[in-house]
Amino acid sequence: VTERDCQTSHRSVTLPGLVNISAFVPNVSNVITGPADLMEISRVYLESGFTHCQFMARSQRGPIITDLPSLRAAYSAVQGSSFTDYSFTVAGTAYNSNNIADSAEQVTALFLPIRELKNKISTVSDLLQAWPLDKPVIAEAKTADLASLLLLASLQNRAIHITGVSNAEDLALIMKVKEKDYKVTCDVNIHALFINQDDYPEAVFLPLPEDQDFFWNNLSSIDAFSIGSLPTAIAQITGNKVENGQGIKEALPLLLSAVNEGKLSVDDIILRLHDNPVKIFKLPQQQAAVEIDLDFSFRSNKRWSPFTKGGLTGGVERVISKDETVVLSGDVVASEHDGKLIVSQVQPIVAPQASKPLAAITNESAII
Amino acid sequence: VTERDCQTSHRSVTLPGLVNISAFVPNVSNVITGPADLMEISRVYLESGFTHCQFMARSQRGPIITDLPSLRAAYSAVQGSSFTDYSFTVAGTAYNSNNIADSAEQVTALFLPIRELKNKISTVSDLLQAWPLDKPVIAEAKTADLASLLLLASLQNRAIHITGVSNAEDLALIMKVKEKDYKVTCDVNIHALFINQDDYPEAVFLPLPEDQDFFWNNLSSIDAFSIGSLPTAIAQITGNKVENGQGIKEALPLLLSAVNEGKLSVDDIILRLHDNPVKIFKLPQQQAAVEIDLDFSFRSNKRWSPFTKGGLTGGVERVISKDETVVLSGDVVASEHDGKLIVSQVQPIVAPQASKPLAAITNESAII
Ligand SMILES: [Zn+2]
Ligand SMILES: [Zn+2]
Ligand SMILES: [Zn+2]
Ligand SMILES: [Zn+2]
Ligand SMILES: [Zn+2]
Ligand SMILES: [Zn+2]
Ligand SMILES: [Zn+2]
Ligand SMILES: [Zn+2]
Repeated sequence: VTERDCQTSHRSVTLPGLVNISAFVPNVSNVITGPADLMEISRVYLESGFTHCQFMARSQRGPIITDLPSLRAAYSAVQGSSFTDYSFTVAGTAYNSNNIADSAEQVTALFLPIRELKNKISTVSDLLQAWPLDKPVIAEAKTADLASLLLLASLQNRAIHITGVSNAEDLALIMKVKEKDYKVTCDVNIHALFINQDDYPEAVFLPLPEDQDFFWNNLSSIDAFSIGSLPTAIAQITGNKVENGQGIKEALPLLLSAVNEGKLSVDDIILRLHDNPVKIFKLPQQQAAVEIDLDFSFRSNKRWSPFTKGGLTGGVERVISKDETVVLSGDVVASEHDGKLIVSQVQPIVAPQASKPLAAITNESAII
Repeated sequence: VTERDCQTSHRSVTLPGLVNISAFVPNVSNVITGPADLMEISRVYLESGFTHCQFMARSQRGPIITDLPSLRAAYSAVQGSSFTDYSFTVAGTAYNSNNIADSAEQVTALFLPIRELKNKISTVSDLLQAWPLDKPVIAEAKTADLASLLLLASLQNRAIHITGVSNAEDLALIMKVKEKDYKVTCDVNIHALFINQDDYPEAVFLPLPEDQDFFWNNLSSIDAFSIGSLPTAIAQITGNKVENGQGIKEALPLLLSAVNEGKLSVDDIILRLHDNPVKIFKLPQQQAAVEIDLDFSFRSNKRWSPFTKGGLTGGVERVISKDETVVLSGDVVASEHDGKLIVSQVQPIVAPQASKPLAAITNESAII
């Protein structure tokens, strides 16, 4: 529970329901711990203004959703456990290019994980070749692997989205490719815009201050913001307790604080946490709105974060889904509280354990 | 001196003077040892049927020609010391993109060395940006660095030549890019077509047998053959004596043996050791011919090579330059023997120590 002041003089704005295209839910496909984890994490997302999560198909150890069976397990695990809309991605690996396309109808994107595909150009090529041309691809890739991927995508003339761009050089390369009109888009993790290696020298995966300057000076080339696994990685490397839902609560307040400092506009946020994510990943329209209090003094003290000490201004006042208030003053308030899937217009597969197809649930307007 | 039989029944063919586009002459810019080394190496080249060497601008330790001063030193060192035509390349490094273009008129190509530019995408991009669009680029690059380079070249819509392709995956990537009509060309080191990691397991830089199969099955995608530094690297890793001119003598006999085995045609050799090299690097026309004895039993025992034991069939009978026999039965026979530069239609710079511009020598028909 986030405590807040409620002075009537505070400025407020309304955003559409936000989308995190790189939601890190490492146990999402685990039938035992998946449901509880997802319920906790998705609740935090909803309370934080996010109404759609696209799940990364990997944990910190590696890919977790790589084929129809693991996808079915994931659907089964999350069924009835998510406070937000969600969609899955399927991870490409060195071993599944021959059957990856089987999952195409069940997910919003092919996910290319950085570690497994490092230096594996022909594998990546095979995966892209196997994946339907009109289906999105979301990839983690840096430096030379990023360049390889951009080359392969351009050779196929296919769209590709790079998630979690983490340094100036990579963004500069993406900008060069964009100039040539290739269908490349990218996102930067929100935390990567605000904390850097000066803050945590041990976190070499963080940008340098000069990388951040480059990000801010080239915001127009950053199509989306995301949360990703970066907050979890920061907690881990700093020896803090790693919890489910790391980094979600402060994500929007970080951006809103930048709005308050004049570094960003509210439209910049809407474009990068709603419009572009929806467009790039062809997500269904939602009837959701997020009322923002720009003057709210944000403080989250449940999970460790670099911002536990406070100092952020701006937060979620209310989340409305289909004319119903589902979050108020930072907490889920809907009367039904059983953690059902809100909507999934993505055609889901029938989970083996589920007698009732998820598609049936889709048409219910019930939330939580 | 290579000894040979001279039965009249032997089949002979005539080739144009051959070109090695990746001549490894590590001391070429060294004013002390450069002249003697170059004289020895270029003599071996000429005796082996090569009449033009394009020098790689690196030694085994790193780049050796990187700017006008080092290029001047190189021109000065080789002046009057080469038995073949030659041209220089200039190496791009992490530090010379701002002045690399100064050397463009003095060299046939920008040389991008693999080790120095590994993972340095923005450096490579800066180098390509600085280099005149109509001037060739020759690059060593593998896997992801190769892909990066191909992407950067395609973004500039510029020609690029990859030298020493060493595995099937890299060639497959190049083939994919060629399909899209990018201006990419490539060569494979001659030794890489004939010896592999089964022969020398410690030489992990050699192709695997399956890589070689891929090379032979996709010969039409290999624009050129080269010698490169591979023979030197093999001698080194096998603990054999490393000598100047390693691998040159057996280069053509290896290919001619393949002709004898029906794996290659003489035209395949002409295309890849003359026509394409001349076209790709815009080299001047030469009046040179190489008479080949297809039945000659080749044996070279001066330098160690994987083929010291013999077993190769085919060799150089005679080299003719401007109607003059300059090599006969494997040895330089020209009366003048002072190791002059044959021709250089590449506009050379005035070496600091030279009172007479090299251009003047260019028009002399004298050889050696
Ligand atoms: Zn709460
Ligand atoms: Zn308030
Ligand atoms: Zn929407
Ligand atoms: Zn307020
Ligand atoms: Zn000799
Ligand atoms: Zn003979
Ligand atoms: Zn010629
Ligand atoms: Zn003979």
